[in-house]
Amino acid sequence: MYRTHTCGQLTLADLGKKITLCGWVQKSRDLGGMTFIDMRDRYGVTQLAFNADDDEALRARARELGREYVIQVKGTVIERSSKNLKISTGEIEIKVADLAVLNAAKLPPFLIEDETDGGDDLRMKYRYLDLRRNPVRNNLVLRHQMAQAVRSFLDQQGFLEVETPVLIKSTPEGARDFVVPSRMNEGQFYALPQSPQTFKQLLMVSGFDRYFQIVKCFRDEDLRADRQPEFTQIDCEMAFVEQEDILNLFEELISYLFKKVKNVEIGKLPRMTYADAMRLYGSDKPDTRFGMQFVELNPVLQGAGFPVFDNAELVVGIKAEGCASYTRKQIDALTDFVKRPQIGATGLVYLRYNEDGSLKSSVDKFFSQEQLQAWAKAMDANVGDLILVMAGDADKTRKQLNELRLELGNQLGLRDKNKFSALWVVDFPLLEWDDDTKRYHAMHHPFTSPKPEDIALLDTAPGEVRANAYDMVINGTEVGGGSIRIFEKDLQQLMFKHLGFTQEEAQTQFGFLMDAFTYGAPPHGGIAFGFDRLVSIFAGLDSIRDVIAFPKNNAGRDVMIDSPSSISQEQLDELKIEISAKA
Amino acid sequence: MYRTHTCGQLTLADLGKKITLCGWVQKSRDLGGMTFIDMRDRYGVTQLAFNADDDEALRARARELGREYVIQVKGTVIERSSKNLKISTGEIEIKVADLAVLNAAKLPPFLIEDETDGGDDLRMKYRYLDLRRNPVRNNLVLRHQMAQAVRSFLDQQGFLEVETPVLIKSTPEGARDFVVPSRMNEGQFYALPQSPQTFKQLLMVSGFDRYFQIVKCFRDEDLRADRQPEFTQIDCEMAFVEQEDILNLFEELISYLFKKVKNVEIGKLPRMTYADAMRLYGSDKPDTRFGMQFVELNPVLQGAGFPVFDNAELVVGIKAEGCASYTRKQIDALTDFVKRPQIGATGLVYLRYNEDGSLKSSVDKFFSQEQLQAWAKAMDANVGDLILVMAGDADKTRKQLNELRLELGNQLGLRDKNKFSALWVVDFPLLEWDDDTKRYHAMHHPFTSPKPEDIALLDTAPGEVRANAYDMVINGTEVGGGSIRIFEKDLQQLMFKHLGFTQEEAQTQFGFLMDAFTYGAPPHGGIAFGFDRLVSIFAGLDSIRDVIAFPKNNAGRDVMIDSPSSISQEQLDELKIEISAKA
Repeated sequence: MYRTHTCGQLTLADLGKKITLCGWVQKSRDLGGMTFIDMRDRYGVTQLAFNADDDEALRARARELGREYVIQVKGTVIERSSKNLKISTGEIEIKVADLAVLNAAKLPPFLIEDETDGGDDLRMKYRYLDLRRNPVRNNLVLRHQMAQAVRSFLDQQGFLEVETPVLIKSTPEGARDFVVPSRMNEGQFYALPQSPQTFKQLLMVSGFDRYFQIVKCFRDEDLRADRQPEFTQIDCEMAFVEQEDILNLFEELISYLFKKVKNVEIGKLPRMTYADAMRLYGSDKPDTRFGMQFVELNPVLQGAGFPVFDNAELVVGIKAEGCASYTRKQIDALTDFVKRPQIGATGLVYLRYNEDGSLKSSVDKFFSQEQLQAWAKAMDANVGDLILVMAGDADKTRKQLNELRLELGNQLGLRDKNKFSALWVVDFPLLEWDDDTKRYHAMHHPFTSPKPEDIALLDTAPGEVRANAYDMVINGTEVGGGSIRIFEKDLQQLMFKHLGFTQEEAQTQFGFLMDAFTYGAPPHGGIAFGFDRLVSIFAGLDSIRDVIAFPKNNAGRDVMIDSPSSISQEQLDELKIEISAKA
Repeated sequence: MYRTHTCGQLTLADLGKKITLCGWVQKSRDLGGMTFIDMRDRYGVTQLAFNADDDEALRARARELGREYVIQVKGTVIERSSKNLKISTGEIEIKVADLAVLNAAKLPPFLIEDETDGGDDLRMKYRYLDLRRNPVRNNLVLRHQMAQAVRSFLDQQGFLEVETPVLIKSTPEGARDFVVPSRMNEGQFYALPQSPQTFKQLLMVSGFDRYFQIVKCFRDEDLRADRQPEFTQIDCEMAFVEQEDILNLFEELISYLFKKVKNVEIGKLPRMTYADAMRLYGSDKPDTRFGMQFVELNPVLQGAGFPVFDNAELVVGIKAEGCASYTRKQIDALTDFVKRPQIGATGLVYLRYNEDGSLKSSVDKFFSQEQLQAWAKAMDANVGDLILVMAGDADKTRKQLNELRLELGNQLGLRDKNKFSALWVVDFPLLEWDDDTKRYHAMHHPFTSPKPEDIALLDTAPGEVRANAYDMVINGTEVGGGSIRIFEKDLQQLMFKHLGFTQEEAQTQFGFLMDAFTYGAPPHGGIAFGFDRLVSIFAGLDSIRDVIAFPKNNAGRDVMIDSPSSISQEQLDELKIEISAKA
């Protein structure tokens, strides 16, 4: 027993107790004949008091302690003269009788404080020190709480947590696999799972009825700030369900999580079709914390002789309430924003509803005041509002206006991290066209079922076939997605055909699944949540990296352990592989 | 909504209800004008009744259903005339009004019954069908329950579940790593973790105080029946603890699990030193479900002129109570057993304490009746007992006698799978000599701390240094093991030196850990349980394979998905690796 209590535990109720505490030296200060040390552990901070009058030698030793030294003290709980009511232990301190240094510490390369002076690279290299900081540790405590709450909810609902294999088989469909050479099967490779998709479907064929797993998944993709080569999913599947059953149950899960972990009532989740989401927000993951919905203006703005509008497939606007006072400079900045190569718009048209009731647009020479009035009316604009309009190819323009809407949301403080707005986006297209490969790809994955009434369109208008697929979106981020699966061999084969698989390819890669479908597969469907992303939203963070204990950088490296690394020639020989000469 | 209830739910309390059920056709039988179908799902079996008098067409369709068809029925709950009180739904049946085939099924390649006719290979290939069988599914339900109970207990005790990375760095120490070529870091490799050992220690340095994880680990070893290339650990670590704290807490965990999941009181776990375990059982994982402890007989049996005893380092016996009646043939069989190459003994000596009080041994010509009496007395033998004695090199002889003891335990029915005997084995040696490499290896791993009082022996008698290391043993199986770790850089460096690491090797492989020790590392220790093995013991099974949803065979293959497999040249090119020509 190194300690009797933790550093977050003692209060006035413990006055007079003889205790032993352990922890790290947070900071120390001298006041006259006294030395005070804040000692920290995971649970809190306790003040230690050393009085020169009582024991000068002990006090002298206390003064020699550096930041982050690991110490053990024995002493008595006494009342503090100068109380700190911000912390739970702030009314007491420890009158120290004995002090032992358990381990000395070099000065850390950055401050172990809530606000630190360490840059990203340094903090990644010394991740074990960064993890000592309260905000970082609190993210992982939140993650722990969410994982336990998810499991508790799903266990209550009769879901069985089943571990699926990590060493599986590479399939070319989808993202790039990480592969693992097999020593016992020369020249062959395992792959790490991008998701346990086929295994959870097999568990449904096995009659497991309700499955879940909080599970690591892997994708060898070029990394962005919010991507990691290994990430965690809450992976779920149910048999004998329709889409409605899944939406209801997992809406309940999310409500439970918000209530349990954040004490937030998220309410009933609205449902929006993919088509509506694109039409009203230009995104399949609309941030519904704020309105500013798109208004299509073709009938209002076309035919007035302004070629940009007249020649456009779509003319569409948003209303920034109360922004009529934006200066020319501010509007120019917004125009520059949408013209950036990442967004690629050619311009931005505004209409300002001035305080005096007059209307002023950047295309006044094409529009009469009456026409401007009709425009403002179509936008449901009031005095003081600013209307921003874009025009062009429908899909591209929607995506561009979505970026502008989000930027305005940021500027206007409408994207509050402490506010949560969740919804379901449903009726996703089954297929999407890929310009690179000149063929249709599965928008979710090849096991997603088409809506029965749309199957006939597979041959004539594949892009219009809707799927029984759904995403959960919170604050403009897709946190989960799933579908009702195909469970009949014939339909699955038809889908593979439409995705450009030869029969042989389909059989080699997914033969076991199609075979399984012939032995009594039940209707089934499921969902997977990106757990890292869900935690980051709960934590109010922008990046998933902050909710991962030991993340990798954008080159896929763990700079703390210096991985990946070279391996020995002996290892390569045993695996019967070589590094290419060109590498 | 495909169903209103499950197949394990309806009872007499539901009489008259209109219900909808879904499930698999277990079997069907005709009785006069009636057809009865047992419909199965995960939750149970419900009897469906089709009466030709009511609806001949419906009954005709029911008769066409094959085994394992997936069906949906609507009907009314009625009382059964012939009740089956063995199952929860045995007093009711469904008078079916409507029947829909959701999916037809080919005849499965083996019987989906508790007792099946399928061989191992066939059941592995069609694992998704084997998982439909109650005993197989029940193992995984048990696994789920145990995982939830473990998490609930540890969460209550303040442990945080933290996910550690799967893509880490290869280290030559220990077993062989699986490696993962990195596309973004040409010529470099990740390794899959054999355990999260260093990461959990870093979390202690980070002040996480109490960590756990139920986590997949990987070892590329040649497989035996009870080994899998991927396996699951309950991995735990605590700061500011001594060995005693860990033993007490995890003893509580095991007691909680036994009580919660099996309603078994496992009681206080005895502690036995490694030295005693070897002396009394010839094993560091003694099966303490039965006695039959070793008795060392050197003083009693040496000097009588029998060279095998006289020249032996150790003469040691066990007493098989009530086995004096063993025939010569039975004793010959035991002798053959210990002479098998896997055991390698040269012979077996017996002493029989006959019912008439006489003593008979296989070495009578060397021993007087008085000497035989002394022998029997040393063994605390009674009339009717059989004494079996082996002699030779102490270590080898103990191991051989351990095998004999276990075999006798089996033969005498003393190893009851429904009886549980758990203990701690403590004070393991720190190092063990390896004849192949001619050097000492860490018996647990290089981070295990030596007992402070034994550190001086590191230079003079390394094999005698005891570690603060402990195993939990249940029914002769090591289910968990751990240690108090080294937390000081100097001692860790000393250990690496004794393990034959150059300073450079130690720095390259574990520099990050030794650096971490210089920034304020607390004393810490932990334990890891083999979760697969623990579940298999709770389930009364011999192999861990039966508690894994999708296990691999002895060649490391998943024969269901046919993995590992070849990958495309394009994948190899992207990874800049080649398969060796000799492969």
